[in-house]
Amino acid sequence: MKKIRAAVVGYGNIGKYVVEALEAASDFEVAGIVRRASSVATAEEMKYPVVSSLEQLERVDVAVLCTPSRLVEQSAEKALKLGISTVDSFDIHSGIADMRARLDAIARESGAAALISAGWDPGSDSVVRALLEVCAPQGITYTNFGPGMSMGHTVAVKAIEGVKAALSMTIPVGTGIHRRMVYIELEDGYDFDSVAAAIKSDAYFVNDETHVIKVESVDALKDMGHGVNMVRKGVSGKTQNQRFEFNMSIDNPGLTSQILVAGARAVLRQKPGAYTMIEVPIIDFLPGDRDQIIRRLV
Amino acid sequence: MKKIRAAVVGYGNIGKYVVEALEAASDFEVAGIVRRASSVATAEEMKYPVVSSLEQLERVDVAVLCTPSRLVEQSAEKALKLGISTVDSFDIHSGIADMRARLDAIARESGAAALISAGWDPGSDSVVRALLEVCAPQGITYTNFGPGMSMGHTVAVKAIEGVKAALSMTIPVGTGIHRRMVYIELEDGYDFDSVAAAIKSDAYFVNDETHVIKVESVDALKDMGHGVNMVRKGVSGKTQNQRFEFNMSIDNPGLTSQILVAGARAVLRQKPGAYTMIEVPIIDFLPGDRDQIIRRLV
Repeated sequence: MKKIRAAVVGYGNIGKYVVEALEAASDFEVAGIVRRASSVATAEEMKYPVVSSLEQLERVDVAVLCTPSRLVEQSAEKALKLGISTVDSFDIHSGIADMRARLDAIARESGAAALISAGWDPGSDSVVRALLEVCAPQGITYTNFGPGMSMGHTVAVKAIEGVKAALSMTIPVGTGIHRRMVYIELEDGYDFDSVAAAIKSDAYFVNDETHVIKVESVDALKDMGHGVNMVRKGVSGKTQNQRFEFNMSIDNPGLTSQILVAGARAVLRQKPGAYTMIEVPIIDFLPGDRDQIIRRLV
Repeated sequence: MKKIRAAVVGYGNIGKYVVEALEAASDFEVAGIVRRASSVATAEEMKYPVVSSLEQLERVDVAVLCTPSRLVEQSAEKALKLGISTVDSFDIHSGIADMRARLDAIARESGAAALISAGWDPGSDSVVRALLEVCAPQGITYTNFGPGMSMGHTVAVKAIEGVKAALSMTIPVGTGIHRRMVYIELEDGYDFDSVAAAIKSDAYFVNDETHVIKVESVDALKDMGHGVNMVRKGVSGKTQNQRFEFNMSIDNPGLTSQILVAGARAVLRQKPGAYTMIEVPIIDFLPGDRDQIIRRLV
């Protein structure tokens, strides 16, 4: 069987896990890694070609975009214009539909396909949210996150003057409401109470219950585990009180990367255009014979 | 907006709930009900044309098949050959892939589409099972059913000599293992212990822990509630111990019928052929503008 040749674009935390997930998937091979020219290659990377631009790799079927979300669109554009399909885990919910529309036009023109926001939220959680509306169109879904580190909130804390290092944990308190537990190392010469007040009044935190705690070492607290608890109570037809719940307790980069790799498989099965996960049949994410998948899972 | 005209084929318990779900869905209208000629129409049915054969109804876009599973294939064939797309909740797991292959050929020839096994298991559970394999390809999924009435097991008990009325409840005991709690009314002149032994040695029960209990009235115990607890522990890429859980507590015919109606919407968006739910994008099951759905749910 001809293997799918995947390029890993960006080699931070997610990129490293994507290489692992590609190695674990027997229908893929790593075409190479695209990273900033200035970076030093590690021993791990030496197994694969490391280049500074996608076109330097040979016969790439799909590019797995592991850049930060704000750089995803430009990476996707570049790959699509080379005729290479893409998958990303762009996670800025408010920007998804517009990015999809822009990439859709580019993808159709180039004859490639883009699967966007294919992580766990947005991503697999979006599939569950949509499925629960299929099951009970009327009702309320609550998505509760955590306990786990919020990248966005952690970055926001680090940007505040006087913060040397930070970790913002998301704690679910139910009905989609979250407590923020913020752990910081303080720069010398700063007053903790003033810094804590600045954090609590930041746009990321001002609407949530936020606790700021000074610690000696933020690194000692870090754990990439995360969780989701999604609950829907709703109406099927005219039948009330239908209850659904989805829980997961996962390693965050591990799951994101796995879904990206499954998405790299799925995107090659789509017609030119840009898609979110809810627009792609689930079977397309799975390897192997379709009839056998149906016999095993349906 | 032009409404989708749906025919309800079969007017037992599921058929009645399907009419409710169609009435609750603003993009549908009930084209009519197809039932056995000998049946007496109820006041409820008088709202819609009641006929004995699908071709007697006007402008039918989709037929929602609410016949027993063993009659689904012939109903689907008949509708497809009239060029009418179909949706069913055929629930004999071992027969799904083969029925799909046969109906696929008929559907392609007639230019219509068939969505098969679109209930909750097979159906929405199948989507979750497939999604969990996307998230963690290596590992074990357990689907635990109940507490709830098993139609198949109940029918099997009723077929045993000496049983006047029966109810077989499925009780989950974890790891996909189920206890069978069988409640029976005994025919006069039969010995309870002999009848209980016959039930326990029946193929439906011989491999499960089964308890048979004699009651005065089976009807007094009946409740159409059901439940699912699906658990997967697996590996994403090379990351171990990823944990996922899906639970629901639902009215059985209410959920089945809702999914059938959502499936009636989805099937009209597919190319000719036969499909299971994992082969259809989830967004196709939802009404309304796709861009808005993406903004709301992804």
